[in-house]
Amino acid sequence: MKYCFGVDIGGTFVKLGLFTTDGELLDKWQIPTRREDASSHVLPDIADAIAKKLEEKGIAREDVTGVGFGTPGPVTEDGVAVCPANLDWVNKPVAKELTELTGFPARGGNDVNVAGLGEMWRGGARGYKNVVVVPIGTGVGAAIIVGGKVITGTRGAAGEVGHIHVDDEIEQPCGCGAVGCVEQFSSATGLVRMAKKLLTETDTPTTLRDLEVVTAKDVVDAAKAGDAAADQIFDKFCDYLGYSLAATAAVIDPEIFIIGGGVSKAGSFLLDRVQSYFVKYAWPGIRGIKFALAELGNDAGICGAASIVIDK
Amino acid sequence: MKYCFGVDIGGTFVKLGLFTTDGELLDKWQIPTRREDASSHVLPDIADAIAKKLEEKGIAREDVTGVGFGTPGPVTEDGVAVCPANLDWVNKPVAKELTELTGFPARGGNDVNVAGLGEMWRGGARGYKNVVVVPIGTGVGAAIIVGGKVITGTRGAAGEVGHIHVDDEIEQPCGCGAVGCVEQFSSATGLVRMAKKLLTETDTPTTLRDLEVVTAKDVVDAAKAGDAAADQIFDKFCDYLGYSLAATAAVIDPEIFIIGGGVSKAGSFLLDRVQSYFVKYAWPGIRGIKFALAELGNDAGICGAASIVIDK
Repeated sequence: MKYCFGVDIGGTFVKLGLFTTDGELLDKWQIPTRREDASSHVLPDIADAIAKKLEEKGIAREDVTGVGFGTPGPVTEDGVAVCPANLDWVNKPVAKELTELTGFPARGGNDVNVAGLGEMWRGGARGYKNVVVVPIGTGVGAAIIVGGKVITGTRGAAGEVGHIHVDDEIEQPCGCGAVGCVEQFSSATGLVRMAKKLLTETDTPTTLRDLEVVTAKDVVDAAKAGDAAADQIFDKFCDYLGYSLAATAAVIDPEIFIIGGGVSKAGSFLLDRVQSYFVKYAWPGIRGIKFALAELGNDAGICGAASIVIDK
Repeated sequence: MKYCFGVDIGGTFVKLGLFTTDGELLDKWQIPTRREDASSHVLPDIADAIAKKLEEKGIAREDVTGVGFGTPGPVTEDGVAVCPANLDWVNKPVAKELTELTGFPARGGNDVNVAGLGEMWRGGARGYKNVVVVPIGTGVGAAIIVGGKVITGTRGAAGEVGHIHVDDEIEQPCGCGAVGCVEQFSSATGLVRMAKKLLTETDTPTTLRDLEVVTAKDVVDAAKAGDAAADQIFDKFCDYLGYSLAATAAVIDPEIFIIGGGVSKAGSFLLDRVQSYFVKYAWPGIRGIKFALAELGNDAGICGAASIVIDK
């Protein structure tokens, strides 16, 4: 039996998974991301965690084939993290350092893309090779997978479907600096922003007024429960997301869209509405593209990371 | 010296080119596309033309490495033309038949994609590997080239950037069946359609009223000459095209856009305006993407076709 590790490096926690090279997840756990000293402890901590797990499980070093990883922001082909959000690194050669620290070959990529590979390997996109995986949380990103391989783009900026321009009326800028991006509407923060605007700028009756703090989940739940004002917000979320995916599909013609991230917990209530807007905006030749929910949740990152160092 | 052929199969003419495998174009010519008998003569005619050219030039058959081709519509990986526009074929195994008829290995793809490869090999995109080549004529298409390879999409429908939805006001449908596609505005036919609408539905003064028949070139020329109404039409053309390219760039992050096709004869007058709208709609991380004009004109197809059968 051979083994490998999948490592999902985030700003608060590093998630780790021990896999067989047949793809079985044997163990998963997480360690805190120690940001002190310019995040210099993060990679040594990962190497320690891997060494301890091998000892705990009694696995011989020669039976380990490699360590895959995902990290925020652009990652070069040879595993340099350019400027990961919530980590204090600039052009950090993660693959090289993790190879040296662990003694195992390490390879990785951007966390969204790596999680997308996870969904293709073991999740909602099993069996597909042309896949767009769209995690919706604070923002909206996409892993663009063509022929089983991630398209990273010239600057590592492929899949920024959350920054397709969709709205000419909003005045405040998106976090990216542009104005009118999908992400300003079709994200958890977008739902909350639109709800706040509704509550402060209108007298429209809505059950959301009964809440002290409105979360994205509150908006979705109120829409589900039939609150007309909340549904209007939710509808705009789905409209703009469906539009941006129709544009994406016109460019790369995938087999399937996988919707993931925290907001995807809304399930088919979300998926069906997004797909109906997709069909509205897509040209006839691509209207049949499938939609499905992500299946791996928080495990997508470690699964995708492991898949990078497994010959499938 | 070794040789190869590039063949660009269109609905009216088949263009042919004789190349050295070093990439030199030695001769080019065209033959009519004989549509009679369900277009069954087209491939035999091409084989005849190639055989005659070899005889004329005194080239030995063993010095010919292959025949590349481009044909309209989706083309599968193994060279089957699914339903080429202006040809009466359905699932025509062009690569297989052309290999048998000529005795040389034949490979090919969709004509827009093949012309895009030509621009990358010898034209406006020389030296680039992540390229979007956008021919603008009757319609608008795009060759999406990532890492030097064309992305064809699941249904051969990648690069249909002309069918990104951009307009909610137009009522008549696009040729594709959707309503409000880029192509209804940002194409030669789009320019003519908008001009006709202006002339019949408004009293706006414009030099276009002096013409018996208004062509796309007339609209561009009038805009260049300072005609305000023509400029407004031309501006909408550039606005929607720039928008759709910004959406395209958000998805795949190319190095450069190459604008080609008949309308690109408008030169920098067109290029600069499209790029300024691109910058308006693109998110900051990709605003620096380059724009250039196609350079090969009608030779792009035969060049790209030849490039397919040359080891570069």
